[in-house]
Amino acid sequence: MAGMVTLYELKGKEGRLYSLFSWRARMALAHKGLGFDSHPVRMSDKAAIAFSGGKTVPVLRDGETVVRDSWKIAEHLEAAYPEAPSLFGGATGHGLCQTFNIWADRTLVPAMLPVVVADIHERIDPVDRDFFRAMMEGFLKSKLEETLAGRDKATERLGRTLDPLRAALKRQPFVCGAAPAYADYIVFSVFQWARVMSPHQVLAADDPLAGWRERILDLHSGFARNVPVA
Amino acid sequence: MAGMVTLYELKGKEGRLYSLFSWRARMALAHKGLGFDSHPVRMSDKAAIAFSGGKTVPVLRDGETVVRDSWKIAEHLEAAYPEAPSLFGGATGHGLCQTFNIWADRTLVPAMLPVVVADIHERIDPVDRDFFRAMMEGFLKSKLEETLAGRDKATERLGRTLDPLRAALKRQPFVCGAAPAYADYIVFSVFQWARVMSPHQVLAADDPLAGWRERILDLHSGFARNVPVA
Repeated sequence: MAGMVTLYELKGKEGRLYSLFSWRARMALAHKGLGFDSHPVRMSDKAAIAFSGGKTVPVLRDGETVVRDSWKIAEHLEAAYPEAPSLFGGATGHGLCQTFNIWADRTLVPAMLPVVVADIHERIDPVDRDFFRAMMEGFLKSKLEETLAGRDKATERLGRTLDPLRAALKRQPFVCGAAPAYADYIVFSVFQWARVMSPHQVLAADDPLAGWRERILDLHSGFARNVPVA
Repeated sequence: MAGMVTLYELKGKEGRLYSLFSWRARMALAHKGLGFDSHPVRMSDKAAIAFSGGKTVPVLRDGETVVRDSWKIAEHLEAAYPEAPSLFGGATGHGLCQTFNIWADRTLVPAMLPVVVADIHERIDPVDRDFFRAMMEGFLKSKLEETLAGRDKATERLGRTLDPLRAALKRQPFVCGAAPAYADYIVFSVFQWARVMSPHQVLAADDPLAGWRERILDLHSGFARNVPVA
């Protein structure tokens, strides 16, 4: 299968792969045991992924099939590779995971963003800087520099958003129970985004989430651990 | 099986069954197709459930087995009745559902509480009133009467907490996908608690959550619809 699958994702400075949503696709591919070619593109280079019909990564090319959007990529992999380890564990897990995915995108991602956005700006491809700044400042309705002043408050807010996950990980080793599955990768993508682009410590060493993150970093022969980080 | 299973739950005025967590157990029993005897007790009557070793409902007696805590009851039913329709849909769904259960308890329940708590107080067994008021005012750190003045704000906050679920229910008919499972009942329990005890409309008629609630009320021959409500 290796070589037939290509993942288009974001290209940061010095080989950093920093697209949060592409990390969901990366982890899903690793979970399925699928090799793939990474094709990093600049955030502002819409021409590179125009073939997908969209303007955002991740885009997956799997043989003749092109899929964009991390959730659709996960669904494609689950349907196309049913013999490989499951990402959802059946129809009920699939449906609940979609609900969880939406929760994470609307709650967890916006809670992490102000904590790491200024550091991300320092580590993206310099060509993308103006594009990135305009997009993020529009979204946050504040200057990137102001997020640094508000970082302690934002980190506290993030902590409150994470509380239910922290409590869950005191009861079971993974978000999905005894073994990791796609919902774990959804949460992990947010932490990996931070890890690849920001030196700011978002988790205390004794946080149950820190232990869980280490377990995810160990998976698939250290697949997510052994990459350029901040 | 009917008659062998007894559910201890809370007894409100005029037959209202208002324990949020007992509704999770009720729906789980209905999902499994199990008949049961309801044994409503007063909130302040700890002697009635002392046999369980705990002080809170729901308590399930299933033959010789006694289980307390709604989550443990769901796990018991799933393990004890594997041939009946599944509540979790396998190990991954089970684990993710535990995470979701904790999220709901820490986020959704506290968001609904101030919206309905004063109305609940009006409809519990009068013997429980002082007990209920002391417990809830301690929890809320305000008088029950003050929650009425703050209800519009609390309803707005609840709306924001519900946003991800609303978005999910635009994409699929149930929290768990094409068919309901235990995570649907977790969310439903919070709305049924409101429906049984409060005349306040917490959802607009065109809210995707309102359509979903109707679908849940239709399940199992209108099991949750046909009960005394506010």
